[in-house]
Amino acid sequence: MGRLVMKFGGTSVANIDRIRNVAQHVKREVDAGHEVAVVVSAMSGKTNELVGWCTDASPMHDAREYDAVVASGEQVTSGLLAIVLQGIGIQARSWQGWQIPIKTSEAHASARILDIDGTEIITRFKERKEVAVIAGFQGINPQTGRITTLGRGGSDTSAVAIAAALRADRCDIYTDVDGVYTTDPRVVPKARRLDKIAFEDMLELASQGAKVLQVRSVELGMVHNMPIFVRSSFDKPEDIDPHGTPPGTLICSEEEIMEMHVVTGIAFSKDEAQISVRQIEDKPGVAAAIFGPLADANINVDMIVQNVSEDGKTTDLTFTVPATDYNRAKDTITSAKAKIGYIRLDTATDVAKVSVIGSGMRSHAGVAAKAFKALAERNINIRAITTSEIKFSVLIDAAYTELAVRTLHTLYGLDQA
Amino acid sequence: MGRLVMKFGGTSVANIDRIRNVAQHVKREVDAGHEVAVVVSAMSGKTNELVGWCTDASPMHDAREYDAVVASGEQVTSGLLAIVLQGIGIQARSWQGWQIPIKTSEAHASARILDIDGTEIITRFKERKEVAVIAGFQGINPQTGRITTLGRGGSDTSAVAIAAALRADRCDIYTDVDGVYTTDPRVVPKARRLDKIAFEDMLELASQGAKVLQVRSVELGMVHNMPIFVRSSFDKPEDIDPHGTPPGTLICSEEEIMEMHVVTGIAFSKDEAQISVRQIEDKPGVAAAIFGPLADANINVDMIVQNVSEDGKTTDLTFTVPATDYNRAKDTITSAKAKIGYIRLDTATDVAKVSVIGSGMRSHAGVAAKAFKALAERNINIRAITTSEIKFSVLIDAAYTELAVRTLHTLYGLDQA
Repeated sequence: MGRLVMKFGGTSVANIDRIRNVAQHVKREVDAGHEVAVVVSAMSGKTNELVGWCTDASPMHDAREYDAVVASGEQVTSGLLAIVLQGIGIQARSWQGWQIPIKTSEAHASARILDIDGTEIITRFKERKEVAVIAGFQGINPQTGRITTLGRGGSDTSAVAIAAALRADRCDIYTDVDGVYTTDPRVVPKARRLDKIAFEDMLELASQGAKVLQVRSVELGMVHNMPIFVRSSFDKPEDIDPHGTPPGTLICSEEEIMEMHVVTGIAFSKDEAQISVRQIEDKPGVAAAIFGPLADANINVDMIVQNVSEDGKTTDLTFTVPATDYNRAKDTITSAKAKIGYIRLDTATDVAKVSVIGSGMRSHAGVAAKAFKALAERNINIRAITTSEIKFSVLIDAAYTELAVRTLHTLYGLDQA
Repeated sequence: MGRLVMKFGGTSVANIDRIRNVAQHVKREVDAGHEVAVVVSAMSGKTNELVGWCTDASPMHDAREYDAVVASGEQVTSGLLAIVLQGIGIQARSWQGWQIPIKTSEAHASARILDIDGTEIITRFKERKEVAVIAGFQGINPQTGRITTLGRGGSDTSAVAIAAALRADRCDIYTDVDGVYTTDPRVVPKARRLDKIAFEDMLELASQGAKVLQVRSVELGMVHNMPIFVRSSFDKPEDIDPHGTPPGTLICSEEEIMEMHVVTGIAFSKDEAQISVRQIEDKPGVAAAIFGPLADANINVDMIVQNVSEDGKTTDLTFTVPATDYNRAKDTITSAKAKIGYIRLDTATDVAKVSVIGSGMRSHAGVAAKAFKALAERNINIRAITTSEIKFSVLIDAAYTELAVRTLHTLYGLDQA
């Protein structure tokens, strides 16, 4: 017997029939003898509707009132799932963030979970065999007693934080995919589902564009060493053997992964734009002059590449921003031209970033070099390179994205047999 | 300067444009120097949608979970109105039942308000000139920390209870009619809007089928002597002089009504069915044998008429039930025939109840007699009569309802000039 947190997203609870399906998944685990807490999102589309009303009510709306409005979506699904569970003979009770309570920071609309009191829920596991159905995405500001929300996608984070607070054995995230793949299977048909992936690799994969899980939920899993199991909500509950190993990907600590590959996966993002600031003075403060104004404009800068200057006097600096921020970023830099003191601005919008990720790189040399050679053989020009301990990224022309991803996928032995 | 509670129903907050209109009403009162708490219902249609989901999830759903689901409707509108108010420069904050808190009984889905702590809201009136936007219809069970709701139409009750707790000067109920009429204006075009009506008369009018206000809200107003002003939410906010006397009806104590009429209004209900139990033994316990099983079947019995028996041995007993319960009521009585020991059952479904209401009847004799004579002159047969201190009702064939109401309306001088 174990303790389990099960998280279901918006499409899994989009209507009463889908909620019935979720209830069958829960019943399977309860019947197998587990203590279960379920974390639910709002019905798909609901949060967008509520956010739309807030924006319509006032474009510059108070985040505290926004939170009160949008948190209602999860309140509805938590109550409905509790009703459905009771209807099939399972003790269940819904919980809103303020009832548990899930205490968060006061950063309304993007609050961080500070503390979760799992006592009452654990007591009810023991005394009543009661399933806790918890509204995801929300908490309470303990200072003001106001509802807070965690920001979009926050239900993943709720689930992992609750799993940690309840000292669960595992947090199951039911999604519309059946696990984490070595890369996007729509681009690389030979992409392989990973049975296990280390937290660190998943963090990079999630940050680099794989949209399976919210990054913060993986961070939390890593901090609390809480295994996260990504699995499909479309699997028929009756087809699953609760004692078997269902299809899915376990995100866990490196130590639990017997057979580590050097490279775990390839991520990519086409929504990139490149800005190269040419011939700036190579002196302290010049990077601050560029990135200060961008930060003030709330533009998220991704890759930053600055070369050692040849002559010790001038250098070039290249960075990427999300394509949607391209125009604003370009304007921001142009406005600050006098202060930065650059000669020319080169920009490109049809660029893509391809990232190769693997904790195994730490102990293996030459991993990146192999990639550069393979890409060169395909005549794919590399515009810029950044590296970290367990990842490297190349910026290339967007037209070559699929070719580059497939090439690297094969190169590192990720193709399925 | 005064303190005001303003209540707006579902049609008044049906969308953001309507909510903007509500905000203008609030702004008018704030600008006039009043301290204002606003009580809102869910957007029209929302509560029905939420209730439908609960029923769909399980026909026999847990009332605690039902309450968690349906209370979300008012949560949304309270947050949205706060946003709109802030957008036009008015300090505002939304309040859910659990935040104030509004403590209720544990009778989920039909809870009664026990206690409201108005301290924080009054403090904010004083210190921040802040408008409180309160979700109607809901509270919290202080024992369990669970959300409760007051039952359909409960926002009227919320508003009056909050007005009492905040020691407000008046509770304004904005509805889709511009006040309380002597009878339904759709039936009697000469119906007159009452400037004032006593709590007792309004209670009878509300109980007897006039659907302007929830009965419990009038009871609460009477208990706390809280004047309730019924007015139209369709009046344009900019057309209203905050210092003048807007169109509407003030429900208040008798003492504040200078010129009392003997009869205040005529109420009627066509959704009635009549059941006459013939030749039952005239002995103790026979009424219990009839009404016990009806109560067990949760059937609401309205009029009860039992005549003094002629021979001291057998008598007839007539009662009415809502037309929707007619079949169930008939079956219930038939099943209990042996125990009741009646000879014959006479029933009628096409019947209507017409009630004449007026506190002035207390001090005026012969009020009912005039009515019986006038109805007889119109050849309207009276099937049964019940009377109370400030009201009498007659049961007639439904076909004569309009004629009877118009006749009595004219008879008691209620027609407008």
